[in-house]
Amino acid sequence: MTDELFLPPDRYFDPDPKQKEIALHLYRQVAGKPLVCPHGHVDPRMFADPDYQFGTPTELLLIPDHYIFRMLYSQGIALENAGIPRADGGEVEQDHRKIWQLFADHFYLFRGTPTGMWLAHELHDVFGVKDKLNGRTAQKIYDQIADCLIRPEFRPRQLFERFNIEVLATTDAAADPLDHHKAIRESSWKGRVVPTFRPDGVVNIDRPDWRVNIEELTKTCGFEISSYKKLIEALEGRRAYFKTMGATATDHAALTPFTCRLSDEEADAIFQRALKGAASEEDATRFTGHLLIENARMSTEDGLVMQFHPGSFRNYNPLVFDRFGYDKGCDIPVQADFTRGLKPLLDRFGNDSRLRLILFTLDETTYSRELAPLAGHFPALRLGPPWWFQDSLNGMRRFRDQAMETAGVYNTVGFNDDTRAFPSIPARHDLARRVDANWIAGLVVRGIVDLTDAEEMIHDLAYRLARRAYKFD
Amino acid sequence: MTDELFLPPDRYFDPDPKQKEIALHLYRQVAGKPLVCPHGHVDPRMFADPDYQFGTPTELLLIPDHYIFRMLYSQGIALENAGIPRADGGEVEQDHRKIWQLFADHFYLFRGTPTGMWLAHELHDVFGVKDKLNGRTAQKIYDQIADCLIRPEFRPRQLFERFNIEVLATTDAAADPLDHHKAIRESSWKGRVVPTFRPDGVVNIDRPDWRVNIEELTKTCGFEISSYKKLIEALEGRRAYFKTMGATATDHAALTPFTCRLSDEEADAIFQRALKGAASEEDATRFTGHLLIENARMSTEDGLVMQFHPGSFRNYNPLVFDRFGYDKGCDIPVQADFTRGLKPLLDRFGNDSRLRLILFTLDETTYSRELAPLAGHFPALRLGPPWWFQDSLNGMRRFRDQAMETAGVYNTVGFNDDTRAFPSIPARHDLARRVDANWIAGLVVRGIVDLTDAEEMIHDLAYRLARRAYKFD
Amino acid sequence: MTDELFLPPDRYFDPDPKQKEIALHLYRQVAGKPLVCPHGHVDPRMFADPDYQFGTPTELLLIPDHYIFRMLYSQGIALENAGIPRADGGEVEQDHRKIWQLFADHFYLFRGTPTGMWLAHELHDVFGVKDKLNGRTAQKIYDQIADCLIRPEFRPRQLFERFNIEVLATTDAAADPLDHHKAIRESSWKGRVVPTFRPDGVVNIDRPDWRVNIEELTKTCGFEISSYKKLIEALEGRRAYFKTMGATATDHAALTPFTCRLSDEEADAIFQRALKGAASEEDATRFTGHLLIENARMSTEDGLVMQFHPGSFRNYNPLVFDRFGYDKGCDIPVQADFTRGLKPLLDRFGNDSRLRLILFTLDETTYSRELAPLAGHFPALRLGPPWWFQDSLNGMRRFRDQAMETAGVYNTVGFNDDTRAFPSIPARHDLARRVDANWIAGLVVRGIVDLTDAEEMIHDLAYRLARRAYKFD
Repeated sequence: MTDELFLPPDRYFDPDPKQKEIALHLYRQVAGKPLVCPHGHVDPRMFADPDYQFGTPTELLLIPDHYIFRMLYSQGIALENAGIPRADGGEVEQDHRKIWQLFADHFYLFRGTPTGMWLAHELHDVFGVKDKLNGRTAQKIYDQIADCLIRPEFRPRQLFERFNIEVLATTDAAADPLDHHKAIRESSWKGRVVPTFRPDGVVNIDRPDWRVNIEELTKTCGFEISSYKKLIEALEGRRAYFKTMGATATDHAALTPFTCRLSDEEADAIFQRALKGAASEEDATRFTGHLLIENARMSTEDGLVMQFHPGSFRNYNPLVFDRFGYDKGCDIPVQADFTRGLKPLLDRFGNDSRLRLILFTLDETTYSRELAPLAGHFPALRLGPPWWFQDSLNGMRRFRDQAMETAGVYNTVGFNDDTRAFPSIPARHDLARRVDANWIAGLVVRGIVDLTDAEEMIHDLAYRLARRAYKFD
Repeated sequence: MTDELFLPPDRYFDPDPKQKEIALHLYRQVAGKPLVCPHGHVDPRMFADPDYQFGTPTELLLIPDHYIFRMLYSQGIALENAGIPRADGGEVEQDHRKIWQLFADHFYLFRGTPTGMWLAHELHDVFGVKDKLNGRTAQKIYDQIADCLIRPEFRPRQLFERFNIEVLATTDAAADPLDHHKAIRESSWKGRVVPTFRPDGVVNIDRPDWRVNIEELTKTCGFEISSYKKLIEALEGRRAYFKTMGATATDHAALTPFTCRLSDEEADAIFQRALKGAASEEDATRFTGHLLIENARMSTEDGLVMQFHPGSFRNYNPLVFDRFGYDKGCDIPVQADFTRGLKPLLDRFGNDSRLRLILFTLDETTYSRELAPLAGHFPALRLGPPWWFQDSLNGMRRFRDQAMETAGVYNTVGFNDDTRAFPSIPARHDLARRVDANWIAGLVVRGIVDLTDAEEMIHDLAYRLARRAYKFD
Repeated sequence: MTDELFLPPDRYFDPDPKQKEIALHLYRQVAGKPLVCPHGHVDPRMFADPDYQFGTPTELLLIPDHYIFRMLYSQGIALENAGIPRADGGEVEQDHRKIWQLFADHFYLFRGTPTGMWLAHELHDVFGVKDKLNGRTAQKIYDQIADCLIRPEFRPRQLFERFNIEVLATTDAAADPLDHHKAIRESSWKGRVVPTFRPDGVVNIDRPDWRVNIEELTKTCGFEISSYKKLIEALEGRRAYFKTMGATATDHAALTPFTCRLSDEEADAIFQRALKGAASEEDATRFTGHLLIENARMSTEDGLVMQFHPGSFRNYNPLVFDRFGYDKGCDIPVQADFTRGLKPLLDRFGNDSRLRLILFTLDETTYSRELAPLAGHFPALRLGPPWWFQDSLNGMRRFRDQAMETAGVYNTVGFNDDTRAFPSIPARHDLARRVDANWIAGLVVRGIVDLTDAEEMIHDLAYRLARRAYKFD
């Protein structure tokens, strides 16, 4: 038995020596390229404050990462024991060394998972850890990370530069005043951190926090959101403001890809019912579906790239939601019907090149059946990278396998890391670059593309497509 | 042309020499481990009688195996000609040599199928056959098997020991008095054969034989099943009895994963309609959905592991069903929606570690979209191995590929053979062990897990997970 | 950077040297076999006229190929600029050299796509092009193709012979008088070109052109199609006529695989509503579903092989449909439910070996879940090759991977090219033969089939299954 961390330099490539050689060649061409991060959930606060410090290793790496604690929970470990804060402020484990030990004791659960792969890279490349994480090495590794975290070069701005991030987009609610973004822009620091406009909280009228969100939007806008028309006015105003703060994109979620066109009267009637707390489930579906078309319309006017992530049944586990709140790893995917769902939106704006609509899915069955045929036809459409549970070595491979022949590489938008775990960003990009290099090498050894094309393609996938798709160039 | 049976010692491994070497290394670690068989359909009668003899090769290998005769039927061969008994007792072929010849003449149909792979292993390892089965070799092989079958070492108990079976679970109806199991336990034979409680026949009120099953349950229980409450009482009583006879698990089927919670009044109203033959299709769906939750509740109390196999449209072909009865290979899968379907059950018991619910599917689209995210979150859930049509080399590979990154290996339960063909058991376990060794070797050569982890994983997948999941240790 | 066309002789095979060697061996056994083309959309006119000449390279290769212009359109290139004729006769680009240049400038979009693979083969093998198509080489290659196209050996009949086509089936509307087929049969040319009966235009009552199609059928039949009964009479008559002209098959499309049995009275009531323009969407679904069963019944009587391609949402993009008409690349797949949808048809004719029903799908999720189990049971069913977007290297691999273990190779029907681009036929068959050889070689190196079986299988997949399934032998 060895306690050495396992991270071979030719990892994630196919074992065939010829393919591996080409994959390594392609990977090396882009391994050092800057990271373009057009979609993610990093907190902008950490860049606003030049002296921001990450807390303990547990606070940095475990507590905010629902990929990690969901797996512990699935094996019967109470979230309280993993230090996850309770919504009611109830007691949870405070001993971060103990939580870290618990995690390390169970790190075998992550064998073969993306979390396991990212963490190995992160520990090694960011913190210089040479040991494999397990019960025996837990405290030694904890010390090593803790020692790093107090040093100035481990502050967020310094890591941002060390990670060679060219641009990082955050995700921000419609009502967010973007104070942190303002502070970043007004500072002398040159790092490019931009907001993304995410209006779900005020357009999905079935959210438990919708009323609160509308009130906040009212406060931010300085006028009452008393009607559908006012809501549209508020959204247009906020989009304009986000743009002035550097935003190039919006982001939208919904349970399904359903869209529909309402008259202003219908939309307002639903809005009024929602204000009274009397909107039905169908009202909510139709209102969200209509607002998606409205946001597409706004995108044709203001040029913000529109991202759409349907298909997640949010807060699926009521016990965990009641006890711990939003984003605690109990969102579960459902089937999607993009073909019928998006038709009303595409009928109106699918042929309009001013719109750029980037689609994401958790239902891989739509890759070859719906998404690739749609993206391979409509000028307004592009396919986002594999999302969430599919943002993994096999998930990326399946996406390439199933979508590329029909959609074509140039109807995709490269990689994004979609993370709230800032120090995992390099690991995630590195994994994606390796998987893409290996995929392209597979095309070369199968006689499908020549090496000249392959070199173009790896640059496109690793860097250029994301820059271009999100209008960062 | 050669008539030599093809069964290379490094079969089922990827051709890359490095991966193959590691796969062989891992496979050899577990090739000789005892077989844990927690789910199957072997008839316990064969172990109750110490002198039980299998009949002809055709009776042993073909007539009971719907994997085989469905394929012959698909090519236009009448089931009567394959010796399948008719429900009405009508005439079918009785010359078992002739049926065997027909099968051998058509054995090319099984090229690349699991049936072809299992049978090659079985003929070779169990019966010492060295020839490839085809029209020319048919009678010679028939003779060879027939010669074996009259020898004492080919009686079921002797084969059980030769196969190195640690435990074998059968599947038994709720009303079954378990006489064969009793006989086994009371005999001096040490083989561990345990029952599994399968109440479908009495809870799925739309089955043609439901009334008959209820009457049998009445007889077994000694009280009339005249109400929903009595049914629950009967089920609880039978579960307790099955436990005393060694059962560690229950097994449940349904057309879809739909569950719902009924009040006792609603449940009884449906039950009364069913007794009168007046229950609707919706009644049946809701009653089954409610009984699933009730059985989950019982599992939290008595600790029996709950297995759930939804998604098969049973007896799909009315002509074959009318002429030949149940389980004749005309069950066809349908789409499943586990996310919405299981929610009522999971809301109630998903967070309860006393429940262990093992899910199976015939709809592979749910692997990455629903099952892996659910199993990677809920403490009560585990994923069963690929089922039925997916219990195959490629089917297992797809399961590993699509579910492991999100569910994690430790939310699965190892392999089960699910067979009614007793002598195929070693072949099925051997194939699974080879496929798993190859999968893990693929992780090693791709730099994802190190060899130390790989050796742990193959022991887990081949032996330990099944023992633990089904509470055999 | 090199401008040499990339077309290695061992292309499309896996890189493992042993698998590649066996794949090459198998491929070479069938690379020169005649092409059996039982399903496609080549215009029979080109064989009726012995002096038929293809126009410019652009007319031959781009304008009729919706695989090509959909990809250009997806990147914002107006179809008018690609020379696609407008339905209203409006102006479109007429300079074919300019269109060719535009295409070549964007040929990088086809990296890794089947269109890219086919075109490379076609340019090289049919026209002797040695350069890679791009902006620099565009005009040189245009000249080279144009030079070919004026030579007599590039007339359709000559290419037909050079391509070694054994039989080519076209697809023809029910009302088509088959004049071109008549001319071919009456000529001294020996090429076998046969029609396929496709009644969609007169049985799918929701088509915009249904009334026009019924009128044409009336004209062809010489009696008025004034009732459901007359429609059945007309269909039976046309099928008989198609048979006399060499047809061995029919072809059917629908949005979903739904079938249902109507009484003659119901069917006629719907037909009368349709004549009045008063049929509902449900009417259309049920009428189509009923006519599928009726056509199956006719097949049991006249022996025509029945092909069924459900699952495409036709003319999905109203803007493109209004401006450019049918078949312009905006047909998008939807989910299919074969299990429930086909049951009424299978209940009636699934066990009848006189029917041969070949199923195609755009919803790959049905491969392992529905199609393979159905085809592995019902004598009347066979599986067609991967269709349309799935007719690709990866698409074929997925089909083999997911369907063969359960359906078995002998419930499939070999390859068909399904093309309207006549000179792409050899490229498409060659790709399929390579992919199949590689798949079988994969079985050999994994110890699943021996080389003797492998050689049988490649002959079956490349040639014999198609001949037999479509009754050409």
